[in-house]
Amino acid sequence: MAAALGPKGDWFLQSKSIKGFLLDITGVLYENGGVAIEGSIEAVNALREAGIPVRFCTNETQCTKEHIVTKLNRVGFNLQPHEIFPPAPAVRSFILERGLRPHLLIHDGAKAEFADVDQSNPTCVVVGDAEDFFSYANMNAAFQSLMAMENPVLISMGMGKFYSSKGKLTLDLGPFTKALEFACGVEAEVIGKPSKQFFLSALNDIGLKPEEAVMIGDDIVSDVGGAQACGLMGVQVRTGKYRPKDENHATVTPDGYVDNLLQAVKLYLKHR
Amino acid sequence: MAAALGPKGDWFLQSKSIKGFLLDITGVLYENGGVAIEGSIEAVNALREAGIPVRFCTNETQCTKEHIVTKLNRVGFNLQPHEIFPPAPAVRSFILERGLRPHLLIHDGAKAEFADVDQSNPTCVVVGDAEDFFSYANMNAAFQSLMAMENPVLISMGMGKFYSSKGKLTLDLGPFTKALEFACGVEAEVIGKPSKQFFLSALNDIGLKPEEAVMIGDDIVSDVGGAQACGLMGVQVRTGKYRPKDENHATVTPDGYVDNLLQAVKLYLKHR
Repeated sequence: MAAALGPKGDWFLQSKSIKGFLLDITGVLYENGGVAIEGSIEAVNALREAGIPVRFCTNETQCTKEHIVTKLNRVGFNLQPHEIFPPAPAVRSFILERGLRPHLLIHDGAKAEFADVDQSNPTCVVVGDAEDFFSYANMNAAFQSLMAMENPVLISMGMGKFYSSKGKLTLDLGPFTKALEFACGVEAEVIGKPSKQFFLSALNDIGLKPEEAVMIGDDIVSDVGGAQACGLMGVQVRTGKYRPKDENHATVTPDGYVDNLLQAVKLYLKHR
Repeated sequence: MAAALGPKGDWFLQSKSIKGFLLDITGVLYENGGVAIEGSIEAVNALREAGIPVRFCTNETQCTKEHIVTKLNRVGFNLQPHEIFPPAPAVRSFILERGLRPHLLIHDGAKAEFADVDQSNPTCVVVGDAEDFFSYANMNAAFQSLMAMENPVLISMGMGKFYSSKGKLTLDLGPFTKALEFACGVEAEVIGKPSKQFFLSALNDIGLKPEEAVMIGDDIVSDVGGAQACGLMGVQVRTGKYRPKDENHATVTPDGYVDNLLQAVKLYLKHR
């Protein structure tokens, strides 16, 4: 398939105003199983060689930045932890700024992020993609914790519905956050894509304004829609969990589609 | 606390038009742990002696009618299985009438109700209060089953948010149904309180119209709100999962409050 036109015409014709890239990781750089997507290593290297700042915005919440980098570099990327923006460190900053004490309903692999944070007498519940840790006992404990709070605060590291893992659709954290919202009559504060604050923190790190960057992702809502709502261009790749029906999405129209990240980078560099 | 006034004034002053009672079980007759609530045995006996028809509308979905009756009679009640209206038999009828094949996400204790129902190649998912069976693996299997259906049908035996068990608030099936609704973009068909059809089937059994009966329960939404939407009076007891903040509920105003079932029955019999 050729690169399709976005609503503003060929997005890459505006390459001159684009000074930086935000990239999703899973489904753009590599598949959930850990295999690099064709051309994605070359694409990231090409951006670096051209001096284009890049940050990686991911809703990966099962492990730390260091683990993410280790997994990526093992298959041939060359990333640094400070370039990765997952929700956990943002949640950590958020709860420390507000003086909150978390009850964690997250994957064991992500708990290191909160190791030195006071977790006694919780004043908020934090939900990550806990996977098998979403047991009835753990859901109940989080629920009871919320119900015991004078002002219940529920924080969720994204609202993804499901993802593809080992070829099977698998429940993401969003449905479990919805369950707690319904049980307690509260609305979760989402920290992670598609929250505006989340994209801005990555942009801030490379000193760019939203209109000076493009977000490239496979999730039509969290990546593309979220970025656009924040003022960035949003381009969808036809890899990862992309499905042809995304191109008729009810509420989100990307600024463009590309077959994969490498095509996006080549088009950008050619028209810059 | 004294019996509080409902929006229509003292509900029991309308006792002359009330000919029958629908009673919730858990939180009204006994606590989830199995202890009879003070005065509740006396209250049921008093209604029987006065010749007032009574049916028991419960969203208990962890076991069969016979088990429920055994548990109640062990602590001093004198109930018959045909007086009990739980959701499982209604769900069974519903799926057989429609020729559906269920994927069961229910408690092992309730599976006997579906023992002779074809469960191959499921065409619907049935959610009961599965409690510890609400594991991530079981939730994921139900989700994958729904996603594999051409026309996903999700059936839930109620939408209760939580109940009180051994003195602790405990997640009910509603939040887990919400999780599946959100993940799959479907709306559950609710069979059980607060569905109108469910109250009507119990009323039908005693030959009464909605305006001739009162529902007494501890759940402000499922018991009281559901009954009122069906045309019954709805009175909330201050036992079970009742919490003082229920008296300022955003959408449901009961026809009255009573400290417990015995107070309701005494007020009713006095003003009849």
